Amino acid sequence: MTRKQLIEQIKIKKSFLSVGLDTDIRKIPKHLLEFADPVFEFNKRIIDATKDFCISYKINTAFYEARGVKGWQSLIKTFNYLPKDTFTIADAKRGDIGNTSAMYADTFFNPESSEMDFDAITVAPYMGKDSVSPFLKYVNKWVVLLALTSNEGAKDFQFFGNDDGYLFEKVIRKSQEWADDSQMMYVVGATRGDAFLDIRKHVPKHFLLVPGVGAQGGSLHEVCKYGMNEDCGLIVNSSRAIIYASSGEDFAEMARAEAKKVQQEMEIELARIFS
Amino acid sequence: MTRKQLIEQIKIKKSFLSVGLDTDIRKIPKHLLEFADPVFEFNKRIIDATKDFCISYKINTAFYEARGVKGWQSLIKTFNYLPKDTFTIADAKRGDIGNTSAMYADTFFNPESSEMDFDAITVAPYMGKDSVSPFLKYVNKWVVLLALTSNEGAKDFQFFGNDDGYLFEKVIRKSQEWADDSQMMYVVGATRGDAFLDIRKHVPKHFLLVPGVGAQGGSLHEVCKYGMNEDCGLIVNSSRAIIYASSGEDFAEMARAEAKKVQQEMEIELARIFS
Repeated sequence: MTRKQLIEQIKIKKSFLSVGLDTDIRKIPKHLLEFADPVFEFNKRIIDATKDFCISYKINTAFYEARGVKGWQSLIKTFNYLPKDTFTIADAKRGDIGNTSAMYADTFFNPESSEMDFDAITVAPYMGKDSVSPFLKYVNKWVVLLALTSNEGAKDFQFFGNDDGYLFEKVIRKSQEWADDSQMMYVVGATRGDAFLDIRKHVPKHFLLVPGVGAQGGSLHEVCKYGMNEDCGLIVNSSRAIIYASSGEDFAEMARAEAKKVQQEMEIELARIFS
Repeated sequence: MTRKQLIEQIKIKKSFLSVGLDTDIRKIPKHLLEFADPVFEFNKRIIDATKDFCISYKINTAFYEARGVKGWQSLIKTFNYLPKDTFTIADAKRGDIGNTSAMYADTFFNPESSEMDFDAITVAPYMGKDSVSPFLKYVNKWVVLLALTSNEGAKDFQFFGNDDGYLFEKVIRKSQEWADDSQMMYVVGATRGDAFLDIRKHVPKHFLLVPGVGAQGGSLHEVCKYGMNEDCGLIVNSSRAIIYASSGEDFAEMARAEAKKVQQEMEIELARIFS
């Protein structure tokens, strides 16, 4: 998906919500366990229920890998069920030397290799340029590079710095030599609303993928106040708060209600830039 | 596997070689393609041919994931074929927020979840403590944390620094608060022999996993000169130079010869510390 198509979807749906499919078989409603692939059945119902209100789905690959071959089958089926007009993110946090990152790119971007064809993958920056560039060879595919994450451990290294700034700023500056805002986004955690001010100094035009709204405690309004740009420039992800809105038979209905609620808040924020 | 058991294996086999199973179906001998699972057949023959000369196998998960469900099946079969007395490493470069790293730990350390039970996993440090600690909850399992890698892009961030040192040194220092040398190792690339001097100042006793000997150009003697400690403290990995020593029907025989050659060099180096 191109940047232009992404912005169009945001305007059409009046939403910049990504629904995170962090699907844990131990947490899904019990009545789904009778199906051959309970995780896929859960995801299918969540996708059907939320697709009117989100422009993106983010699949957290760890939750699928943890179940071995069965999990990988659920992952592929889930990917192939995602609506074609949504921006699809493999939240895989990969990154290795060049020939290995090329294999990870095959995994998530090359359907002839692995039956999956995501729009974007999250990548860890520690190993530098040649760990990222194999993903950028795919036209209209995106790298979402970890910059400032929403977890407690973000403090350990991301704020390591010198007179030129912190590590996360160095990551943002340096990586702009590798790709522009048509192929690169950054993960910026929502738990630090005003941190977006600093980030926007470095990347006024880029899209940012924002986890941490909802279960992790971030405020949507704060994120928009400091992080939104003239094209929106934000994809805000919510996982647990939506997919586990209810643990009963009404889980899909409740997920829909929760997604709708977030979309309505987003519509208000978007009215400031798209009128 | 415990540290003590690992050192015993090194003494018994007079080797600290890890064979890297970076198995690419496009590179294996053509006569294997008639099997139902050519990648597994290749690995099985490589393992049989090399196990007398190595103390560890490192499986590069990217090469398996890239082939989707089929690849994941080859991965599990290969893991379960590894000799029980070898130190098994999932070279997966994972790392995410706590609940997600816990899923990655299930993937590689919990056979009830995924049919695999590796001794160690490589982890990227960018997200800090809570991205690493879920792996450390498993008794006698190891985190091999990326410190100084062997690729060109290592320069981009790992040498970002201030008066306290470089980022890779900060990673080594900080992570020692999370686990000691019975559960933590570090990846240190062999392309920079004298860099081991600096590393050993911070971690005199730890084991280091050293890629980059062989195809990537590092010198075994240099690594030993600067990196070896009284318990050996090194696991040196070679992937392509061994597994692709020949592309013909004699591939296993040639892999064995190459592994034996490296083991013999290692035996000379080990004679300096174990007599």
